[in-house]
Amino acid sequence: MVNREYLAMLDNKSVIRELSEYATARGKEIGYENVFDYSLGNPSVPAPDSYRDISVRLLQEEEPLSLHGYNPTMGDPRVKEKVAESLNKRFGMSYTAGHIFPTSGAAGAIAHALRCVTEPGEEIMVFAPYFSEYVAYINGAGAKIRVVPIKADDFQINFEAADAIFNEKTAAVLINTPNNPSGAVYSEETLTRLAEVLTQKSAQYGHTIFLISDEPYREIVFDGKKQAYPAKFYPHTLTCYSFSKSLSVPGERVGYVAVSPDCEQADKMVAMMGQISRGLGHNCPSSLPMLAAAYCLEDTADLSVYETNMNLLYDTFKELGFTVPRPGGTFYIMPKALEDDAVAFCKKALDYDLVFVPGNGFEAPGFFRVAYCVNTEKVERSLAAIRRFVEAEYPNR
Amino acid sequence: MVNREYLAMLDNKSVIRELSEYATARGKEIGYENVFDYSLGNPSVPAPDSYRDISVRLLQEEEPLSLHGYNPTMGDPRVKEKVAESLNKRFGMSYTAGHIFPTSGAAGAIAHALRCVTEPGEEIMVFAPYFSEYVAYINGAGAKIRVVPIKADDFQINFEAADAIFNEKTAAVLINTPNNPSGAVYSEETLTRLAEVLTQKSAQYGHTIFLISDEPYREIVFDGKKQAYPAKFYPHTLTCYSFSKSLSVPGERVGYVAVSPDCEQADKMVAMMGQISRGLGHNCPSSLPMLAAAYCLEDTADLSVYETNMNLLYDTFKELGFTVPRPGGTFYIMPKALEDDAVAFCKKALDYDLVFVPGNGFEAPGFFRVAYCVNTEKVERSLAAIRRFVEAEYPNR
Repeated sequence: MVNREYLAMLDNKSVIRELSEYATARGKEIGYENVFDYSLGNPSVPAPDSYRDISVRLLQEEEPLSLHGYNPTMGDPRVKEKVAESLNKRFGMSYTAGHIFPTSGAAGAIAHALRCVTEPGEEIMVFAPYFSEYVAYINGAGAKIRVVPIKADDFQINFEAADAIFNEKTAAVLINTPNNPSGAVYSEETLTRLAEVLTQKSAQYGHTIFLISDEPYREIVFDGKKQAYPAKFYPHTLTCYSFSKSLSVPGERVGYVAVSPDCEQADKMVAMMGQISRGLGHNCPSSLPMLAAAYCLEDTADLSVYETNMNLLYDTFKELGFTVPRPGGTFYIMPKALEDDAVAFCKKALDYDLVFVPGNGFEAPGFFRVAYCVNTEKVERSLAAIRRFVEAEYPNR
Repeated sequence: MVNREYLAMLDNKSVIRELSEYATARGKEIGYENVFDYSLGNPSVPAPDSYRDISVRLLQEEEPLSLHGYNPTMGDPRVKEKVAESLNKRFGMSYTAGHIFPTSGAAGAIAHALRCVTEPGEEIMVFAPYFSEYVAYINGAGAKIRVVPIKADDFQINFEAADAIFNEKTAAVLINTPNNPSGAVYSEETLTRLAEVLTQKSAQYGHTIFLISDEPYREIVFDGKKQAYPAKFYPHTLTCYSFSKSLSVPGERVGYVAVSPDCEQADKMVAMMGQISRGLGHNCPSSLPMLAAAYCLEDTADLSVYETNMNLLYDTFKELGFTVPRPGGTFYIMPKALEDDAVAFCKKALDYDLVFVPGNGFEAPGFFRVAYCVNTEKVERSLAAIRRFVEAEYPNR
């Protein structure tokens, strides 16, 4: 017999995927350029030339047995060394290669980090709005997700609500900053307070509560600012990274976990991840893409388009009377819908060929997500459609 | 607190890894060329030029957003199509793209296949000698490994012993042919009988017992023969493949599961694997390496060296009086040690700079594994060392 749980999952179609399929079908009717598809978080700018050039050079110059050979269980030492050096330089950390575990993107990173710090049945706290795949990641690790409701004015952390959810089973807190789906960038103030709370709750419950920090959007921050580095604020931090957005190579599945040198069991964690990999069938990330990423670690695709798009959309939403916190980064913005039921709102928008995702899946009901990783020219054309939609459907807003 | 189970695993060091580390350390003393390191199953021939050329061409000619973009949950349609076509042509199957799930190597393939066909606590049957990582794969899927003892004369399947182990909890049988560590190639007779047994036991227990066929060595078969295709013999077969050995690209982590079109729930299995991936943090294999492999699907590295090496070693072992079934494929041979305790035997061999792996870890006590994926020149030099070792330590064999 096949596994009943996975079989049953086939009936729960992802809303985002359904919307994306609708957009594709509608695109066949009226031309895809005329569908304002804001559903998917798929980078829209090409990888930097350096990524291609380094990949080609490695293929042409490296000895194939070494280039394509098995990596050690704990990852390619060259990759580990380069990642540690770069993080130390950028964020004043003191990682060694032994603190870095290369992974298949952030999904692989989080899968390993979660298993390191939880026993079956323990709880992982997340802050709404949160990336909906976290449910699958946390269930997959045998833990239980606990959701802290949103802080609607700025999408920072709702500490009051969190206080009631911490308990002796809280193993870790999983944050994502800059945040998918809200675009919020957690401030130094937020990270300082989070560290204080984690320190206090760890003492109260007599065990370390870990911080898992998911940072694939770290390099997409607006207004010339930088994302403060969460591991600088709290010692027991496992930083999960992906090169998917910074290098625009999401299909290549390359990323890492960086274990803070001050973390409990910091010297054992990466070896534990090597063991965890075996049961997951994961092993190391693919050699060539991972090594190429490590050789252009501080390069990025041209990410400026996302800020341009954000400003166009933010200004239009504000002008039209939406309540909408201004994103500090990512390629998402999350306004409040113009009626209580964001699903109904997004359904009406489809009539104007605007594909938005209702916030319900991110546990931000009443809000909707706009993923503006599309060409600026298309964003500009969409503004008129947004205006028409809002003025026709919500004249008395 | 960190996870106690994974932490405890750090104390159980892999014997193979320890031997390999010994060989590396000894190599630093006397020169690595003088250590006859037969411990690791790491391909020793370079990837074919076609793999490099296709990779470079894809990097230079494909649009980066498409080349490096996210794959659909169920895998790149081009890869799925090409794999299905090739298997149909080579083995007379009738796969469609929908039956193929691209994975991170055979480890990823087995991780998904196991989860598809088991409920927690069910049993997976394996036949000794078996690849020792199966324990981690099966435990990781929440199932229980049941080991059928070896058939020492030819390393085919010990059906008599298997009969006593089948029960209502048997969810699947996991085979590996050509076999690591024995080098055995399961014959048509073996596969026919296995299919009969599985059909009969499925009827007896009132549920399908699946066959998971792990075939990374499919292309390394000697004497001009071919490996019979297990899915041709039994309908409920999930074929797990890796390009690691055929293309000599083990670090690139590319492979697939092919679900037999006649398998129970054949139309759902790949979609289920898409769901399973989410919890494992696996997603699809890396885009570029997977696509490059799909474009040179029927090419191989020059695999002839393995047959040359096998013949040199087999003839020497036979001449020296070892009991040793002749391998039909792979790059392994598994002779019987010259004393009951294969660990002691392998320890003595180290004094002659011969690094063999005792069969205990493969549940073949009394035997030892020789992984001859090394240069033929080195194999030739090792024969004198083997002779010296055996004549000095076992003069009365």
